[in-house]
Amino acid sequence: MTLIYDEPERFAQSALEGFCDINAHLVHPVRGGAVRATQTPEGKVALVIGGGSGHYPAFGGYVGIGLADATVAGDVFASPSTESVARICRQAHRGGGIVLGFGNYAGDVLNFGAAATRLRGEGIDVRVLAVTDDVASAPKETPELRRGVAGDVPVFKIAGAAAEAGMTLDEVERLARLANARTQSFGIAFSGCTLPGADAPLFTVEKGSVAVGLGIHGEPGIRDETSMSAKALADLLVDPLLAERPAGANGRVAVLLNGLGATKYEELFVLWTHVARRLRDAGLTLVQPEVGEFVTSLDMAGCSLTITWLDVELEPLWLAPAHGAAFRRGNVEPRAAAPKPVEADADTLSFAAASDASRRDAAKACAIVERLAAVLAEAEDELGRIDAVAGDGDHGQGMRRGSTAAAEGARKALAAGAGAGSLLAHAGDRWADTAGGTSGAIWGLLLRGFGTALGDDAPVNAAAAARAATAGRDAVTTLGRARVGDKTLVDALVPFVETLDAEVKRGARLREAWSRAAEAATRAADETAQLTPRLGRARPLAAKSIGHPDAGAVSLALCARTVGEALNAG
Amino acid sequence: MTLIYDEPERFAQSALEGFCDINAHLVHPVRGGAVRATQTPEGKVALVIGGGSGHYPAFGGYVGIGLADATVAGDVFASPSTESVARICRQAHRGGGIVLGFGNYAGDVLNFGAAATRLRGEGIDVRVLAVTDDVASAPKETPELRRGVAGDVPVFKIAGAAAEAGMTLDEVERLARLANARTQSFGIAFSGCTLPGADAPLFTVEKGSVAVGLGIHGEPGIRDETSMSAKALADLLVDPLLAERPAGANGRVAVLLNGLGATKYEELFVLWTHVARRLRDAGLTLVQPEVGEFVTSLDMAGCSLTITWLDVELEPLWLAPAHGAAFRRGNVEPRAAAPKPVEADADTLSFAAASDASRRDAAKACAIVERLAAVLAEAEDELGRIDAVAGDGDHGQGMRRGSTAAAEGARKALAAGAGAGSLLAHAGDRWADTAGGTSGAIWGLLLRGFGTALGDDAPVNAAAAARAATAGRDAVTTLGRARVGDKTLVDALVPFVETLDAEVKRGARLREAWSRAAEAATRAADETAQLTPRLGRARPLAAKSIGHPDAGAVSLALCARTVGEALNAG
Repeated sequence: MTLIYDEPERFAQSALEGFCDINAHLVHPVRGGAVRATQTPEGKVALVIGGGSGHYPAFGGYVGIGLADATVAGDVFASPSTESVARICRQAHRGGGIVLGFGNYAGDVLNFGAAATRLRGEGIDVRVLAVTDDVASAPKETPELRRGVAGDVPVFKIAGAAAEAGMTLDEVERLARLANARTQSFGIAFSGCTLPGADAPLFTVEKGSVAVGLGIHGEPGIRDETSMSAKALADLLVDPLLAERPAGANGRVAVLLNGLGATKYEELFVLWTHVARRLRDAGLTLVQPEVGEFVTSLDMAGCSLTITWLDVELEPLWLAPAHGAAFRRGNVEPRAAAPKPVEADADTLSFAAASDASRRDAAKACAIVERLAAVLAEAEDELGRIDAVAGDGDHGQGMRRGSTAAAEGARKALAAGAGAGSLLAHAGDRWADTAGGTSGAIWGLLLRGFGTALGDDAPVNAAAAARAATAGRDAVTTLGRARVGDKTLVDALVPFVETLDAEVKRGARLREAWSRAAEAATRAADETAQLTPRLGRARPLAAKSIGHPDAGAVSLALCARTVGEALNAG
Repeated sequence: MTLIYDEPERFAQSALEGFCDINAHLVHPVRGGAVRATQTPEGKVALVIGGGSGHYPAFGGYVGIGLADATVAGDVFASPSTESVARICRQAHRGGGIVLGFGNYAGDVLNFGAAATRLRGEGIDVRVLAVTDDVASAPKETPELRRGVAGDVPVFKIAGAAAEAGMTLDEVERLARLANARTQSFGIAFSGCTLPGADAPLFTVEKGSVAVGLGIHGEPGIRDETSMSAKALADLLVDPLLAERPAGANGRVAVLLNGLGATKYEELFVLWTHVARRLRDAGLTLVQPEVGEFVTSLDMAGCSLTITWLDVELEPLWLAPAHGAAFRRGNVEPRAAAPKPVEADADTLSFAAASDASRRDAAKACAIVERLAAVLAEAEDELGRIDAVAGDGDHGQGMRRGSTAAAEGARKALAAGAGAGSLLAHAGDRWADTAGGTSGAIWGLLLRGFGTALGDDAPVNAAAAARAATAGRDAVTTLGRARVGDKTLVDALVPFVETLDAEVKRGARLREAWSRAAEAATRAADETAQLTPRLGRARPLAAKSIGHPDAGAVSLALCARTVGEALNAG
C-alpha cells in the first residue's frame, strides 16, 4: 500500500523532486524529468528513457554516465506527455541524435512516437526503441506485441554503454535493438500494489496463489498457480526463458532477478540459489548477474527473471562502467559538473504565414474548439461514470482538461495569426500535453494530424476536411496499436472517417457529410457495448465493461456531433 | 509477507548463500557469514558486524573495502551464536585487533560479548561496539539502553573508513564510539512483517494508524497516531532528532532516510522533499545524504530517519570511498582477490591437563548433562507451550537442541580426557552454538562460567559448586541486561545461587544445598507468573504473558531440580 504522500495527484512529481534532490551530484531536475548533472561530450548519441512513475529505480535511477542521458517521468503508471518527451529530448541532445527507450505500452508508444515525429520535424535524428522482453504477454512469433518489463535494464545499460563509447546513432540503435531481441523476462506476482490515495489495491491475487506472467501494472497473467517452494518457483521462471534461447547463442548470459517491491532481498537471494543452479546446469555462464529491485511496481509483491543472451558485441557493453543513482558498475572517472539547465519560459508562439482565407477559417476552428471544451466540461461526470466501469474513471477529467487547454491554445494561436491548420495542430499539442495519458496523446495526434493535413493556405472545404480527417485517423492508428473491434476510440473514429469520406465523394456538402459521419460514429460508439475489451493495462477492470460502451468511443462521437452542430449553426 | 522460501528454518542460511553467490566478486561465504573476497593488508583493524537476518542490506551488504571485513548472520531476527561470531572473527583478523559492531539487542550483546571474551582469551584484542541510535527506545540520559536501528549504517561506514585508513585499534574504536554517540534515529511503522513460514504478521498496526517509535522487530512504539500527510510525517521524524543536537555541533550532518521494506522508494523521495526542507530550515548542511533501503525488516512498511552530527574527524570518514554490495561511494581502487577461506573441519578437541579427581568428577558431570538432555527432550512440548504465550514458542526446541549438543560435547570432552571444569565449559559452548538465540547464549555463558570457575584440578565440593554457580550467574548478568523482576531466567537463577551459597555457608552438604536451591528456583519460576514481561523484542506478544510463568525461568528450575536429583541419586 502506498502510504506516504501529500496530494495523491502530485505524488509522481514530488517523488521526482525528492529523487533529484538526494541525487543532485548525478541528476539535474527539469520539468517532467531529469538530465545528467555531469558534462556530456558534444556529438554523443543521447539515450533518453522514460515511462510512467511508480517503477523506481526505473527510470531515474538509470540516468548517469554509461547509462541514460535523461529520463522523462509520467504520472504513476501513466505515460509522460508528448511535449515532455520532446522538451527533455531537446535538453539532452548533443548533436549526435537520440535513442528514445521505453517499455512497449500503448501510451508510451504514442507519446514517445509523437515526440519523435515532432523532433524529426525540427531536424533531430531520433530512433524509437520499445523494449519487448515480457514473454508472458505475447508469443515468440510476435515479439513486437510483447510488453517491456525489467528487460529495460539490460537493454538501456547496453545502449547507454554504446552511446558512451562514442558509437554512431546507427550503431547505438542497432546494438540496442540486438540487445532487445536477445532479452526476455518472465514474472510472477503474489499481490497487487495500491496507488497513492487509493483505498484498495489495483488488483488482487488470491491468497495462497501465484499469478504467473502478470504484468507490472496488473495486466492479466497467463494462469494462476497455488503457492510453491522457492525451488519450484525458480523452475517456473527459468523454463520459459530457456525456451527462448536464440540459435547460435554462446551460452553467456546477463541475468537479472528483479523484485517488484514488497518481495524482499532475502527472498530474492533464496530464489537465486535455485535460479543460478538451474541456469548453470543448463550450461550457461552467468556474466555479472544482478539480484535486487530494478523495475518495481510500487509495493507489489512478486518478481521477474530476465536473461540477455550476450554475444561478443553485447558482453563488453553489459560489463562497461556505469554510474547512475541505482546502478553502478566498475569505476567511472569523475566528470565536471554540467550547469543547471535553463528551462524555457512559456513558449512564445510563432506560426508559418497563413492565407487570409485560412485565418478566417482559423477563427471558425477556434470557436469550434471552444465549443468542444464547453461540451466536454459539461459531460465530464457522465464520461467519468462510463469510464469507471472499465478503467480508472478519469476519462471525463482528462477530456475536460485536454479540451480546455486546446481551446486556450487555439485562442492564443488565433491571436498570433495562425492559419486553421496550425491552429488545430497547436490545439492538439496543448491537449496532449495537458491531459497526458493515452487519450490525451490520441487527441493530440488526431488534431495535429488533421491540422497538418489542412494546412494554412487553402480554405477549408468538404474535400479538404475529409482528407484531414483521414490523416488524423492515420496518425492515431499508425502510432496507436488499437484496431477496429478492440473497444477503443478507434471503433468510432474509423466509421466516422469512412462515412465522411464516402459522403464527400458522393458530393455532399461539408455540414451534411459531417453530420452523417457523426451519426455513424455515435452508432459505432453505442455498439462498442457489445465488444469485449481490448488487451491492455486495464484488463482486470476492463473485463467488467462487457455490456457497456467504451468511454473513448463515446467521447469521440460526442465531439463529432458537437462539431457537426457547430458547422450547421455557423 | 515473506512468500519465497523452501524450509522456513533454512531461510536465513539460504539467503546468505544466494547473497554470496551473486556478490562473489565482493564476498566469500563462510559458515554463518561472509568475509571480504579481496585481499586485506596485514595489521589492518578488522571490522566485523552482524546480527539477526531479515534486515538486508544489513549486514552482508556492508562488507567491502572501506566498510566491514566480515559479517556474522544469525537466523531471522535472532542473534548469531557465540561460536559463529568467534570463528568468523578469527577468519577476518589480520593481526590489528577487531572492532565488533552490532545493534544493541540482548541476544547480540550476549553472543558478541561472549565471543569477545573467548577471543581475548586467545590473545586477540577485541573492542565491542553496540550501536544505540534509536531515540524512541530510551531517554537521552540513558543512551546505553537504546536499541540499534539504521544508525548501524553511518556508524559502521565511519568505523570501516577509519580501519581502512590504517588507524590503530584504539583510534578506530574511539571514532566508532564518537560516531555512535552522535548518531540518532527515529522511526515509524505502518504494518508488520511476516516471518518465513508464518501465516500472520509478527505484529499489526491498526489500519489508518502510524506506530510511532516502533522497533525493527516489532518492539513497542511510544504511541499510535492517525495517518498523516508526508509533510506531517516529516515533522514527526525530524523533531525528536533536532532535539538531540549535541552541544557544539557544527551543523553538518549525515542523513539517512531508510525504508523498512514495503515502503517504497518513491514514497521515501516524497517524504525526503519535506525532511530536507525541515533540516535545511534548521540551518543544517546535509552532507551526502542517502535515501533508500539500508536496514529493513523483511516486508515491514515504515521508515526511519537517521542523523549523524559530523565533526572534522567524522566527516571525511563518512565521505571516504567504499564499495560493498549495498553501499558504494566514490571510486575504490580494485584489489587482488583473496583466496577462498579454508573452513576448519570439526574441531579437534584438546583440553588442559586435569587432575585424576577432576576427571572422575568429569564423568559424573557428563552423566548429569546427559540426564539434563533427556529431561529437556521430554519437556520440549511443555516448554514450547509455555513460551508460546509470550514468545515464538521455540524455547522447548532450543533447550532440547542445546542440551543434546551439550551432552554430545560432554561425552567427547570426557573421551578426550577433560577435567570437570573444561567438560562443562565445552558443553556450554556446544549448547550456545547449537541452540543459538538468546537462551542458547545464556546457557552457554552459564555453563562456561560455571566450568571455568570449577577448574580441572580440585575435586568438586559444596564450596566449589557454590563459587562456580556464582561465577555462572555473574557471566549471565554481566553480558545479559536482565535483572530480577524482568521476567526472565534470571528471576530463577538469582534465588537459586543465593540459596545455594547460603546453604553451603551454613554447612549443608552439596546435595542438600542444591536441592534447597532448586526448590527456591522452582518457587521463583512459578512466581514469574505475577510479573509483567520485561522490555524487549517480544513485547507485543509478551504482554499476553501476564498470569503465565516465564519459560526461561521454568526451564532453569527444571534443570536445577534434575541436577539435584542426580546428585542425590549418585
